[in-house]
Amino acid sequence: MLLPGPLGALIEALRALPGVGPKSAARMAYHLLQRDRNGAARLSMALTGALEQLRHCQRCNNFSEAVVCEICASPRRDHRQLCVVEMPADLNRLEETQAYQGLYFVLMGRLSPLDGIGPREIGLERLIERARDGVTEEVILATNFTAEGEATAHYAGELLKSRGLKVSRIARGLPAGGELEHVDGMTIAQALLDRRAV
Amino acid sequence: MLLPGPLGALIEALRALPGVGPKSAARMAYHLLQRDRNGAARLSMALTGALEQLRHCQRCNNFSEAVVCEICASPRRDHRQLCVVEMPADLNRLEETQAYQGLYFVLMGRLSPLDGIGPREIGLERLIERARDGVTEEVILATNFTAEGEATAHYAGELLKSRGLKVSRIARGLPAGGELEHVDGMTIAQALLDRRAV
Repeated sequence: MLLPGPLGALIEALRALPGVGPKSAARMAYHLLQRDRNGAARLSMALTGALEQLRHCQRCNNFSEAVVCEICASPRRDHRQLCVVEMPADLNRLEETQAYQGLYFVLMGRLSPLDGIGPREIGLERLIERARDGVTEEVILATNFTAEGEATAHYAGELLKSRGLKVSRIARGLPAGGELEHVDGMTIAQALLDRRAV
Repeated sequence: MLLPGPLGALIEALRALPGVGPKSAARMAYHLLQRDRNGAARLSMALTGALEQLRHCQRCNNFSEAVVCEICASPRRDHRQLCVVEMPADLNRLEETQAYQGLYFVLMGRLSPLDGIGPREIGLERLIERARDGVTEEVILATNFTAEGEATAHYAGELLKSRGLKVSRIARGLPAGGELEHVDGMTIAQALLDRRAV
């Protein structure tokens, strides 16, 4: 391949994106350079901006610009409930239903032993610590109803209960194998109401 | 959606990539921020680097760091032949076959009236100018054998012949509807040999 250095570097760098192989990366590079140079400049700045300005909220682990995010800092939320989700997108789906007023903890992942993601990688120790703040009365496990999400809920549930915490799981109102991000709001609201003690 | 500003900006910016919708963009953003921050930093730098360092070769229009690219500047190439391709990836495929020793002109596109891409957008005037340097003896049209590539070859061919230039088209050794980038080297070499005058 006869590629000028910066072009080769760009194609290689685009492969950091999930699901992007060499051919897609090349197509993306040509598109940006040829048809959307402003888009390329914006993407470069957005990446730098996100890396510099985003941190994890000290309380819920979600992405945040502040040390403590808006939800965790809000006095209008019910600080006695702590809902555990896998990803920020799941938190957003729950918020959209307006069926939940408590706080969150975002694992930023799920247990996935085959991918080398164990309890340490998804910060379960931080979740325990967070839940033992003396204010939390109930931890609601809202990980996905996939095999990995269920395993995560089971493992986290056992851990939390062994520390004397009240733990519940959102109801299996979601279709089996379903993912929070893709389910309609009514089903999610139902699952929240029907949560059962574990 | 409760997204911190820099995260929303990153997701929005990722949509500049071809074929990336809102869901993919969000997944990409989370992946980069959570699992591959180095990759994100490298991508940002690669974008800036490519935008700053890459220009179009004054002679062949391909991406290049120098004013005139390596191929156009090489005395070992046959400067009497000028092969016209749609994209840099096509040029690379031709080079890999080692069946061609002449020079190139990269259109960086193809005629596509429905997308608003006419002769001006793909720089056919620059091709004419380039081909009339007094050294070029033959222009070989190697655009794809798709409807758009064929239309481009036909239009460019007529234009070049009207200026008294000898024009040929690579042979239809490629399968109908095929694209240069995806065809084996032997077929491409055959098509080069079997080019016919138009």
